[in-house]
Amino acid sequence: MGIKELKEMCCQANLELARKGLVVYTWGNVSQLDREKGIFVIKPSGVPYEELTGEMMVAVDVETGRALEDRYKPSSDTPTHVELYRAFEGIGGVTHTHSPAATAWAQACRGIPCLGTTHADYFHGDVPVTRHLTKEEVEQAYEKNTGKVIVETFRGRNPVHTPAVLCAGHGPFTWGKDAAQSVYHAVVLEEVAKMAMWTYAVNAGAESLPQHVADKHFLRKHGPNAYYGQ
Amino acid sequence: MGIKELKEMCCQANLELARKGLVVYTWGNVSQLDREKGIFVIKPSGVPYEELTGEMMVAVDVETGRALEDRYKPSSDTPTHVELYRAFEGIGGVTHTHSPAATAWAQACRGIPCLGTTHADYFHGDVPVTRHLTKEEVEQAYEKNTGKVIVETFRGRNPVHTPAVLCAGHGPFTWGKDAAQSVYHAVVLEEVAKMAMWTYAVNAGAESLPQHVADKHFLRKHGPNAYYGQ
Amino acid sequence: MGIKELKEMCCQANLELARKGLVVYTWGNVSQLDREKGIFVIKPSGVPYEELTGEMMVAVDVETGRALEDRYKPSSDTPTHVELYRAFEGIGGVTHTHSPAATAWAQACRGIPCLGTTHADYFHGDVPVTRHLTKEEVEQAYEKNTGKVIVETFRGRNPVHTPAVLCAGHGPFTWGKDAAQSVYHAVVLEEVAKMAMWTYAVNAGAESLPQHVADKHFLRKHGPNAYYGQ
Amino acid sequence: MGIKELKEMCCQANLELARKGLVVYTWGNVSQLDREKGIFVIKPSGVPYEELTGEMMVAVDVETGRALEDRYKPSSDTPTHVELYRAFEGIGGVTHTHSPAATAWAQACRGIPCLGTTHADYFHGDVPVTRHLTKEEVEQAYEKNTGKVIVETFRGRNPVHTPAVLCAGHGPFTWGKDAAQSVYHAVVLEEVAKMAMWTYAVNAGAESLPQHVADKHFLRKHGPNAYYGQ
Repeated sequence: MGIKELKEMCCQANLELARKGLVVYTWGNVSQLDREKGIFVIKPSGVPYEELTGEMMVAVDVETGRALEDRYKPSSDTPTHVELYRAFEGIGGVTHTHSPAATAWAQACRGIPCLGTTHADYFHGDVPVTRHLTKEEVEQAYEKNTGKVIVETFRGRNPVHTPAVLCAGHGPFTWGKDAAQSVYHAVVLEEVAKMAMWTYAVNAGAESLPQHVADKHFLRKHGPNAYYGQ
Repeated sequence: MGIKELKEMCCQANLELARKGLVVYTWGNVSQLDREKGIFVIKPSGVPYEELTGEMMVAVDVETGRALEDRYKPSSDTPTHVELYRAFEGIGGVTHTHSPAATAWAQACRGIPCLGTTHADYFHGDVPVTRHLTKEEVEQAYEKNTGKVIVETFRGRNPVHTPAVLCAGHGPFTWGKDAAQSVYHAVVLEEVAKMAMWTYAVNAGAESLPQHVADKHFLRKHGPNAYYGQ
Repeated sequence: MGIKELKEMCCQANLELARKGLVVYTWGNVSQLDREKGIFVIKPSGVPYEELTGEMMVAVDVETGRALEDRYKPSSDTPTHVELYRAFEGIGGVTHTHSPAATAWAQACRGIPCLGTTHADYFHGDVPVTRHLTKEEVEQAYEKNTGKVIVETFRGRNPVHTPAVLCAGHGPFTWGKDAAQSVYHAVVLEEVAKMAMWTYAVNAGAESLPQHVADKHFLRKHGPNAYYGQ
Repeated sequence: MGIKELKEMCCQANLELARKGLVVYTWGNVSQLDREKGIFVIKPSGVPYEELTGEMMVAVDVETGRALEDRYKPSSDTPTHVELYRAFEGIGGVTHTHSPAATAWAQACRGIPCLGTTHADYFHGDVPVTRHLTKEEVEQAYEKNTGKVIVETFRGRNPVHTPAVLCAGHGPFTWGKDAAQSVYHAVVLEEVAKMAMWTYAVNAGAESLPQHVADKHFLRKHGPNAYYGQ
């Protein structure tokens, strides 16, 4: 795929994020990776979605984290995307939002337990929350260390099976095989976060989905024995 | 009615579900029965609502539960629909959604008590919640046993008078005389589930509607003495 | 005003109710009074809002409560409207909805206290909740007695200064100088009900607005010294 | 800038407020200052947003608080805007709304603590709540004293760093360098208020964002070392 197509894919995924109602003003950004070329393209910083075009996407070197062009400045969260692409081999797209229900869980510093099959269809186990960054981590390289703390949170977890995280006091990052799927997961996460909040409103002592049901639902949609879809 | 008309009815009911805002992506499915012919038609698995046409609906044999054509795979929830049509004689349409408020009650493993006349107008008594499926039931035939557990939950209840159920940890199924009415009941259930959640937010000790009011409202709309509508 | 204009006014008010998102399907009805002629016109029972035209509105005699034409059956809540027009002299329009936040308060059997100036701008004091109807009242004349219980709730209150009530376990009725204003009050009530629910979510011990502020706001918009608007 | 352009800017900001869904009917008003000329223009009182044009905006003298024209009466909240422009030197636009989540916090008489980076990006520290006005303050000059109590609440605070306040029992005022930015802050405040309410729903003991993260986020967008945007 050429760089122009990559940028167009990325732009479309960013616009889809806005269409799904997950962003207010310029909050949120999506990137699309080309792992072979060792680059990804990402939304420019602070540009309103109504004005976004494919040409505005900024190409970034995955190895160095540096922008490869200077027409637009890349999203201020770019170093977080870099860390995720470098640590999580199976992914090709990353989305960051401040969608309100997922952000509420992030601000509450609570992971989202798997309370139902909607969750289990996309996220195997809970959606974890990171720890807060230390003062030193914030001062040295805030966005890069945000990525490192996400990677730390996923030690012992398969990021492809749980394509979402809540950054404590901040908001969600999601990922997928490409930009479009990372947006899809951002939409699912917001819905799951809202449902989890409402579940506890209805029953403060609600329990997690039995493991055998959670496994069944995840494997109905993922892996060699999946049978959902055409 | 010919098969083509049946499929068109079913497609329109599926599209209505999307229009009413009850589905995210491909979550949800509606089927339409022809009891005389012993078949029903149902949404294909994993197809986005924007692409749905009548021709894509898949015909299924009620007796065997097998698809009668192989152009599209039927919804993965098809075996649940089969069980409902076989057990509940008075119904002609079934809807499944993950609408958020009804799903919250399902995830909370709580039936929805009849707290007001909006509920009583459509559901006689509470909307029950099923038990969880056992590991064996999940492994043997998950979707079929989901249907069997719904039927078990309705022992001693008239499914026509309470055209909705919450599957524990999963979400709602609703039904009606045809596909369109099952969608109608899915919309009502979501509204009733939201109102019930909000009622307890306002008053944690809220009590059920007095039985004489619940009966009055249900019978104002149903049975030989109904006087609502034209 | 001729009967045709009266019906058109009433139809427009019903359609506005739907446009404001306060009704699901056919839930809700609005009527418009002509006190001189001793008649009011009201939405026909069970007709979807998309199909509603002025000609479908049904004229009703305020004195006898009987429909003056038989092309369409009037709303099943017509006897409640009759009672309100007969008891509350200053009103010319009545609206009934099942809007979710106001209905939640009604189902919770709680009046809405005046917690802020949004409330105080339109409702002087709390929005009261009725008692439940007895079994006898329900069996004898449910809708008529619903009206009588509303009137009983307003003994010692000025219905023009508090143009709304919550029927216990049912939902809100609002009124105004005409059909349009009764719809306006239904929209305000829903917003006020939502805000009150959220206020208690933020602070379970929230207190009512000081009386001197409530009086100021109400009188800023009502009475001889009002100075809001053109 | 000429008065016509000033009015057009103000009208557009008012319309944007409606487009963002922050106002019901005529609730809310936005003004635009020209500090050099010593005037500001503001929405006329009680005019629906659908009918609003630039020509309808009313010019007001900042020094005297008097309208400079009499075609339309200015918003009844005009004296509050006057006090803010006189006390807060760095601002050029003011917005008042009754947006529901921010109003819920105002009715709860609770300031909004900084629970996350969405808040920290725009408001340095909590968004404070005022005290209630006394009976005397209400009777003497309600709207003017509302402004004075806001100013009192900001003693020791920089209003440019916290461009929002909650008036106890009433609702929010926000401000910015111009009318458009004050509307922007009103939208952000509503989102932040909703997220804060939901955060406590998920975790009643949620803690404020660590100060070093709050500072980082605020300074990423504000001041000489800001690096967000183009």
